[in-house]
Amino acid sequence: MPETALLTGEQLIGRTPSRAGRETFCAVDPATGEALGPEVAEATAEEIDFAARVAECGFEGYSMREPQRRAAFLRQIARQIEALGDALLERCHRETALPVARLQGERARTLGQLHLFADLVEDGSWVGARIDRADPARQPAPKPDLRRMLVPLGPVAVFGASNFPLAFSVAGGDTVAALAAGCSVVVKAHPSHPGTSEMVGRAILAAVERSGMPDGTFSLLQGRAPEVGQRLVARPSIQAVGFTGSLAAGRALFDAAARRARPIPVYAEMGSSNPVFVLAGALAERRDAIAQALAASVTLGCGQFCTNPGLIVVEDSAAGMAFIEALGRRLAAAPAGTMTGPGIKTAYEAGLEAAAALPGVALAARSAARGPRPETSAQAALLVTDSATFAAERRLHAELYGPATLVVRCSGEEDLVELARGLDGHLTATVHGSDEDLDEHRQLMAVLGRKVGRLIVNGVPTGVEVGHAMHHGGPYPATTDSRSTSVGTAAIERFARPLCFQDVPERLLPLELRDGNPRGIWRMIDGQLTREAR
Amino acid sequence: MPETALLTGEQLIGRTPSRAGRETFCAVDPATGEALGPEVAEATAEEIDFAARVAECGFEGYSMREPQRRAAFLRQIARQIEALGDALLERCHRETALPVARLQGERARTLGQLHLFADLVEDGSWVGARIDRADPARQPAPKPDLRRMLVPLGPVAVFGASNFPLAFSVAGGDTVAALAAGCSVVVKAHPSHPGTSEMVGRAILAAVERSGMPDGTFSLLQGRAPEVGQRLVARPSIQAVGFTGSLAAGRALFDAAARRARPIPVYAEMGSSNPVFVLAGALAERRDAIAQALAASVTLGCGQFCTNPGLIVVEDSAAGMAFIEALGRRLAAAPAGTMTGPGIKTAYEAGLEAAAALPGVALAARSAARGPRPETSAQAALLVTDSATFAAERRLHAELYGPATLVVRCSGEEDLVELARGLDGHLTATVHGSDEDLDEHRQLMAVLGRKVGRLIVNGVPTGVEVGHAMHHGGPYPATTDSRSTSVGTAAIERFARPLCFQDVPERLLPLELRDGNPRGIWRMIDGQLTREAR
Repeated sequence: MPETALLTGEQLIGRTPSRAGRETFCAVDPATGEALGPEVAEATAEEIDFAARVAECGFEGYSMREPQRRAAFLRQIARQIEALGDALLERCHRETALPVARLQGERARTLGQLHLFADLVEDGSWVGARIDRADPARQPAPKPDLRRMLVPLGPVAVFGASNFPLAFSVAGGDTVAALAAGCSVVVKAHPSHPGTSEMVGRAILAAVERSGMPDGTFSLLQGRAPEVGQRLVARPSIQAVGFTGSLAAGRALFDAAARRARPIPVYAEMGSSNPVFVLAGALAERRDAIAQALAASVTLGCGQFCTNPGLIVVEDSAAGMAFIEALGRRLAAAPAGTMTGPGIKTAYEAGLEAAAALPGVALAARSAARGPRPETSAQAALLVTDSATFAAERRLHAELYGPATLVVRCSGEEDLVELARGLDGHLTATVHGSDEDLDEHRQLMAVLGRKVGRLIVNGVPTGVEVGHAMHHGGPYPATTDSRSTSVGTAAIERFARPLCFQDVPERLLPLELRDGNPRGIWRMIDGQLTREAR
Repeated sequence: MPETALLTGEQLIGRTPSRAGRETFCAVDPATGEALGPEVAEATAEEIDFAARVAECGFEGYSMREPQRRAAFLRQIARQIEALGDALLERCHRETALPVARLQGERARTLGQLHLFADLVEDGSWVGARIDRADPARQPAPKPDLRRMLVPLGPVAVFGASNFPLAFSVAGGDTVAALAAGCSVVVKAHPSHPGTSEMVGRAILAAVERSGMPDGTFSLLQGRAPEVGQRLVARPSIQAVGFTGSLAAGRALFDAAARRARPIPVYAEMGSSNPVFVLAGALAERRDAIAQALAASVTLGCGQFCTNPGLIVVEDSAAGMAFIEALGRRLAAAPAGTMTGPGIKTAYEAGLEAAAALPGVALAARSAARGPRPETSAQAALLVTDSATFAAERRLHAELYGPATLVVRCSGEEDLVELARGLDGHLTATVHGSDEDLDEHRQLMAVLGRKVGRLIVNGVPTGVEVGHAMHHGGPYPATTDSRSTSVGTAAIERFARPLCFQDVPERLLPLELRDGNPRGIWRMIDGQLTREAR
C-alpha cells in the first residue's frame, strides 16, 4: 500500500500542506480497536482561516474556467481516484469496517457521479438561461434587454459523512456538485476516516495540478473538535455549506451560519426515520416478502443509512401481528454488524434502551449474534408500540441510528392518517399496498407528500439513485432546506444563484447568453424554451 | 368612495372578520398630517394564531385545486381589484402621498403580474417535471421509476412594503407568486396604508368566494407592533416568508425564522445602494445626459425605491468634477417630494446629517424646495467623498433611504476595482461606459457580478421589468437569500420544493408526471427536455 504509507495527517490547504496543530488523533479500526497511523493533526484556527482565504482566491480563478475545462477536471478527479486502486478500499475498509464489496459499489457510485456532473457541465443547459428581448419602441418606456443565468455562489464548505466515506465525503456528492457549479471547495473530513479522506483529497489535488486549476480550488481540513467546522462555517469567504450527519451537529452548523453577519445557506441532511406504511391488502398478498425486504433494508450497512426504514406502520390485526412476528424473526436472526465507531454504537444502544423502557413500547426482537468486537458490534432489534403511545411520545419520533426499526400498530384509515399528520419531516415515506389499498388511501399519500422529499410505492427507501429525477431531501428535520437535493444532477443548483444582465453588449456576455447560442444549450427566450439561436 | 366608506379596520381571517384587539391606529395622510379613518385594530396574539391555523386548513384544499382553477382565481383577483376603480387609487394616494399617475402605473403592474402568473400556471411547465424511466433489467439492481416535480411549500406569510402599496403589498409579487405556486397566504399589511390593504384584501377574499377557493386561502392581518410579524413568522404552520423593507426589520424576521424549532426560508429584500460606475469614456461622451438620468432616478418616487442609485463612483478628474457639479445642480433644483411617513423622513434627515458630518464627506448639494408638510417633505441631496474615506467608513456603505446619493471619487482602474471588491451585496450595479471603457473594465464587471443580482450597462437601476429573465435579488444585505427573485415569473420557485415519486402507479401520479403528458408541459425525460409524451 504505497499510497497509505505516504499519508501524513496534515491539512491540505490548496498547494500548501500544513501541520501547525499540536492536538492529534488517529483513525481506529472499528472491527479490532487497532489505531491506524499516521497521527492526524487537528486543524488550527489559523489553518482554517487560511483555507477559507485560499478558497476565495481559488474561486476567482476557478469560477472563470470554461465549462469544458471544469468537466475535464471532474473526469480527471475520477481518474486519480481510480488510480488509488485497491489501496483506497483497503484503507477505507480498515477505517470504517464497511465490507469491501460495499465500498467497491460506493467507489463506482462516486466515480459515476463525477462523470455524470461532467456530462451536465458539458451539456451546459443547467444554468437555466433566460432571455427577454428588448423592445425599444414600447410605451410608456422602452423595454430593456434582460438575460439571466445561474452563476456559482462562491467558496463552499463540505462536511464528510461517517456512513459514506466515499460517496458523501471528500469527493462526494456535495463536493462534485459545488465544483461542477464553479465553486471552490474546502472539505472538513470526517474524523472517523482521516486516511481515506487524505487519499481522496490528494487525488483531487493531483487533478487540480494536472488540469491546471488554480491553487485554492480545493482544500482539506482534518479535526475532531466541533470548533473546526464551526469556525470554517463562520469564515466570511464561505458562501454555502453542505453537511450530512446528525440533527444536533447539522443544526449547530445551521445556527452558526444564521448568526453570521452575512448569513449563508446550509444544506444539512440530518435525521430521518423514513416511515413505511404496510397496508392490509399488501399484508394479504405478500406479508413475508415485505418482512424480508424490510429486514434487509433495516440491517443494510448495519442500519447506517440516512434512508434506513426506522418506522413501520401496520394495522392492528391478526395479519399485522403475523407481519410483526415475521419481521421480528428475521431481525432476531440477523448477523451482527460493525458500526463505524464506538461512539455511534454506544448511541445506538442507549437509544434502543431508552425507547424500550418507555411505557407502551416493547422490545419485540433482538438479534443475539456476536460480532468481532463488542465496542462496535451492533445487533438488529425490533421495537413495537401503538399509535396512541407514538403520538404522545415525541422521543419515538427521533431517528434511532442503527439496525433497528419501530413498528407502530394502527387501527383503521383514520388512525393511519392521523399518525401521518403527526410526523416530522423525513427524507422518504413508503407505502406498501395492493391496487385497492392504494386507491383507498389517497388521502394518506397526500398527507405523506407534505412530510417527505420522496414517496415510494411497494419498495424500500434504501437505494438512492443518482440521476436527474432523484430528490434526496425533505422538510426539517430531515434537512435544513427542503428546496434542495443532495443527490442527483439537480444538486448543482444548491451552489448557484441567478445573475441578470441588462443591456450588456453581446461581446461582454457569458457565452450561454449570447445571441448565437454558441454553447447550443436550452434557453427560455421570451418565455419559450428553445435550443435555437436568438 | 363607497368602498372606502366600508372600511372596518378589522383583521380579515379567511371568511372570519375579527376585531379583538384594543390597541388601534389610524392611517395618516403624509401630505397633510390628517388622520384617515377608520381606526384599525392591532391584531392580537390569538388572531395571529388563528390566521396561521386557518391558512393551514386553506392550504390543504387550495394546494389540491387544478392549475386551471388557480389561474382563473388569479385572474378573478385582478378583476376584483379593477372593480375597486379609482376609489383604490384615491385612498392609496391619501395614505402614501404617492402621485396618482404613479399609482395608476403600479396598479397596472399589479394586474399585469396577476395575469402573467395565471399564464405561467396555465402553461404548467414551471413545475420542472423530471422523469427517469425504470430499467427492471439493470444489474446489479433494477432501476426504479423516478418522477419529480415542484410542489407548494405550505402557508406563506407576506409582509406588505411601504414604498409599493400595491405591487409589493397585499396583492403584490410575493402574494401572487405564492398563490400561483399553490400556497395559502397570510399578509401582514404595512401600517402606513391599512385602508389600501383592506380594500385589496377584501378584493382577494371576494375572488376566493367567486372562485370557490377554500376558506383560509387568504387572510389579512393589521398591526404596527413588530411583535405581530414576529409572532406570525414563528407559527408552526407558516412555511415561508416574503418581506420587503429595512435591513433591521428583515434581519429580525430572518432571525426569528432561524430560531424556530423547524426553521423556514425567509425572502427578505432589504437595503441596497445600487452602485453606479461612471467611466471616463462615458463622461466624455454624455456627461450631462448621465447626470440628468441619474438625478431623475435618485429623486424618482422621492428616492423610495429599492433600486435607487444611492452610490455613484466617478474618476477623480476634471471631467469627474464637472459631472459631480452637473449632478449637484440637478439635485439642488429638484422639487421636494413627500415621503410615505414622518418616521421615514426623520430617518432620511438623520442619515443624511450623520453622513455629511463624517470627516472626508461633503454635502455638495441640497435642494431647498419646500413641500406641503415639513414632517414628510424630503429634499434631494448630494454627498461627495473619496475612495479612501469610503473604504474606511462602513457607515457610508449602508443604504440611505430617500432622494440622496453619495458620489465617491476614485483614481484609476485599480482604485475602482478595489472599491468594487469592498462593496456589500446589492440588488444591482450599473456601469456607464463607452465601448472602450467596457472592454477595458472587464475585471470591474466580473467583481461587480459577485456583488449583485443584476448588472446594468448604460442605464439606470430603477425600473424593474416583470418578466421571465428578471432577477430581483442579490447577496446579503440586499436580500437574505441570493438564490431567489422577488420579481418575475421565477419568483414562483421560492414558494415550492421538489417532491419525487418512486414507482408510484400512473393513476396516482399528478397529471404533470403521467406518461401521456396530459398537460402538454416541458419535462426532462432521462435527461432530455421534451414536450412529448413519455
